Amino acid sequence: MFSVPTQPETARPFLTWQRILDWAQDHYRCRTFNKDEKIPARAGLLYLVQKGAVRLVGEAQVSATASSSRVPRINSEEAFLGFVGAGQPFEIVAQSPFTLQSFAHVDQTAVIWLYWHDLDNWPHFRREVLDAFRYQHQRKLLWLSTLGQRRTIDRLLGFLTLLIEEFGEPCEEGYCLPWALTHAQIGSAIGSTRVTVTRLMGKLRQKGLIRTYGDNLLCLPAEAVSRNQESS
Amino acid sequence: MFSVPTQPETARPFLTWQRILDWAQDHYRCRTFNKDEKIPARAGLLYLVQKGAVRLVGEAQVSATASSSRVPRINSEEAFLGFVGAGQPFEIVAQSPFTLQSFAHVDQTAVIWLYWHDLDNWPHFRREVLDAFRYQHQRKLLWLSTLGQRRTIDRLLGFLTLLIEEFGEPCEEGYCLPWALTHAQIGSAIGSTRVTVTRLMGKLRQKGLIRTYGDNLLCLPAEAVSRNQESS
Repeated sequence: MFSVPTQPETARPFLTWQRILDWAQDHYRCRTFNKDEKIPARAGLLYLVQKGAVRLVGEAQVSATASSSRVPRINSEEAFLGFVGAGQPFEIVAQSPFTLQSFAHVDQTAVIWLYWHDLDNWPHFRREVLDAFRYQHQRKLLWLSTLGQRRTIDRLLGFLTLLIEEFGEPCEEGYCLPWALTHAQIGSAIGSTRVTVTRLMGKLRQKGLIRTYGDNLLCLPAEAVSRNQESS
Repeated sequence: MFSVPTQPETARPFLTWQRILDWAQDHYRCRTFNKDEKIPARAGLLYLVQKGAVRLVGEAQVSATASSSRVPRINSEEAFLGFVGAGQPFEIVAQSPFTLQSFAHVDQTAVIWLYWHDLDNWPHFRREVLDAFRYQHQRKLLWLSTLGQRRTIDRLLGFLTLLIEEFGEPCEEGYCLPWALTHAQIGSAIGSTRVTVTRLMGKLRQKGLIRTYGDNLLCLPAEAVSRNQESS
């Protein structure tokens, strides 16, 4: 596994990260968002999550089932594309026929933004940011691997495994996703519906492949995660 | 759209690219592969496609339907994860529960490999490579956006649109993917089967949303691509 850290306070060289935070404060390049508030991200800018978590969402404008290809398509669908945790960068490149958007996934999500050339002052940090995108790219390839699976239940288990492997925190039950995710959001990621996800989550729970913890947080049993890590 | 070039000969600073090619020849870091030959890529190395095209494939080892989670799962599935064209970098990070692999997609595909520290001599080129991964990451987010769509025909059209938007070349019919892709490969990318893809491709052709050209190459009508580019 790539070892790009998700906890900036401990893993980033403290001084650089602190200097960038100070710089962002001085230049009014920092803002805090409430849960589900849209982060008005623009193409060409670089965003860093200082605190909380960001949810990336894609919106498809292409539909083969629209009545006419000349008419604006109204049946657009939103897809959950993943989280960006504290200390991680993200960027949004608006691109037809799909639109990418970012939302605060939890309250008190703080985001910093920079122009790429602002990083000229911190070449080492720029390298870290680019390496973080390399890592995110590799994770998305794994994500695509599971979305290629034919059975929805396999896609669902693969998706949850990848998400918890990346963001999970140890808990009594094993490893636990620290943020809630609705069944509709899960369905939107794996090309399925809320109803189907609810049914298949029941099946996975019955088989002991997933658990829920506390306030409906998703967990993988410790065996599942350690088995994966052993063979990696 | 990002403007990362796919044609190294014209778009890379010629001298750097030529120097890297010479260096790779001198150090026996260059090899040519036949169609569908596996490229033995290892984690930690950086690969550059000099000529031809590379096909990335993911293999899922996770299955909710295996008889027991303790028993090695045999019903693994391979998913097509995209192309890497000439002048583009790729890397493979083996990661349980998924395995990434690379294959030559066409005959005479030439690949160069380097250690990351080899790029210490060419810092500007390293920056280009990292920017190319940034671009690939953004494309994969768009790809995930379409795979979140519920109807298979929408996923199929979105997938083909993205692929042709990225790699398509102008032809009489519009824009055309320069390499063949089997219906089984397409199915493996969008979580469907060869049979379903064949049926839905027929539907898309009937609606005039896709065409085929020459030796079964996939095309998008010019209107579709230009419409997308206008609104981007």
